[in-house]
Amino acid sequence: MPYQLHYWPTIQGRGEFVRLALEAAGADYVDVARGSEEEAQGIPAMMHFMESPDVRHPPFAPPFLVDGKTIVGQSSAILLYLGPRLGLVGKSEPARLWTHQLQLTIADVVAEAHESHHPVGVGLYYEDQKKEALRRAKEFRTARVKKFLRWFEAVLERNPRGSEHLVGSKLSYADLSLFQLVDGLLYAFPKAARRALKNAPLVAALHDRVAQQRRVAAYLASERRIPFNEEGIFRRYPELDA
Amino acid sequence: MPYQLHYWPTIQGRGEFVRLALEAAGADYVDVARGSEEEAQGIPAMMHFMESPDVRHPPFAPPFLVDGKTIVGQSSAILLYLGPRLGLVGKSEPARLWTHQLQLTIADVVAEAHESHHPVGVGLYYEDQKKEALRRAKEFRTARVKKFLRWFEAVLERNPRGSEHLVGSKLSYADLSLFQLVDGLLYAFPKAARRALKNAPLVAALHDRVAQQRRVAAYLASERRIPFNEEGIFRRYPELDA
Repeated sequence: MPYQLHYWPTIQGRGEFVRLALEAAGADYVDVARGSEEEAQGIPAMMHFMESPDVRHPPFAPPFLVDGKTIVGQSSAILLYLGPRLGLVGKSEPARLWTHQLQLTIADVVAEAHESHHPVGVGLYYEDQKKEALRRAKEFRTARVKKFLRWFEAVLERNPRGSEHLVGSKLSYADLSLFQLVDGLLYAFPKAARRALKNAPLVAALHDRVAQQRRVAAYLASERRIPFNEEGIFRRYPELDA
Repeated sequence: MPYQLHYWPTIQGRGEFVRLALEAAGADYVDVARGSEEEAQGIPAMMHFMESPDVRHPPFAPPFLVDGKTIVGQSSAILLYLGPRLGLVGKSEPARLWTHQLQLTIADVVAEAHESHHPVGVGLYYEDQKKEALRRAKEFRTARVKKFLRWFEAVLERNPRGSEHLVGSKLSYADLSLFQLVDGLLYAFPKAARRALKNAPLVAALHDRVAQQRRVAAYLASERRIPFNEEGIFRRYPELDA
């Protein structure tokens, strides 16, 4: 039975970290909310799991994964679940824990990227918090992005199995997620991200290498990859970059 | 060998979720940064792990746990590691995954609680972003806190093993963390939190019950429990409550 991924159908958002893992592993999956209601898919199928009182483990928000009787929410928890099943994490407990810790730190940067254009509140439009966003985005791109990328650079430098991967000598879901983070930063803050990547050459090289992985490259070139846009987490508002 | 917890010595912060788990389980641990430098503890001992190029798995930020050769950062990953070792999570994979998902959602609320007084940037003082904080805190306490607490209430309602615990019929680290979240909200937003808890009576009852667990109660009454203060995540700025 294919995995069911449930996520908003028009954005990459946090669902993209799961899509990339499924795609890179060549897994059989359905992107439910992008399907048609006639086939019992679409947004109503997604909302069922969030709203029906019959669901014992309701996800707080998309993305979530349905695998038979298992429902898992929170992108990092989904990857914790999928990692071993898709061969995208090492077998040992230390490798799994370290991969998960890297994923959680990537999720922290993603949350801060969202805050950069929504500092006052998720429920308000960007236009209603633009002044605050100018201040927040400045700190994000000048201080936070640099600090995070330097840390990932150090992780790659110190990997005893080589600097091609974050953990061990094989592709993990953390590599895929770091690719997505860098890709999002390059979209939203092209000037600042390129500058920061000059001081994180191993991170930049990992980004480029992951994009060329056979299945990832095919996915990125397909219609399944939703383009970045100004409804998602990484938004290109030129006034927020410098 | 005792567990080593490394965290800022003057605040509860994110370290408190780990402290509570260690305390509730009666685990042998050292709160390293609160120790004296003469005993090779204190902040320098903590900074070593973050700054030394010899550390293969450097934590991005405190809290982190050192257990022999294992170093784990990210409070949720630390609890993923400690849960089975301290008997604070069920044995089955679904129970562990669900407990972790709950923990990640608690971590999301905690991050939003921090944003409520630091919407423009972690590197700036509250006083320099007070105007923005007034807007952000309003959304947090009127929309977000309610929504999150209602969700935890539904989780408790739907637990087939009873509404005393979030998962199964035994205390888990998610219960301890939900206690801490509610405790922090009651400190920072006494008016708004009490109002929201009226619509989440099972959550309120869980909070009170956890506080009375024998070891937790002893811990809360001890000097090991750092009082809430305006340097931590949950800050009482009366102008942000209503």
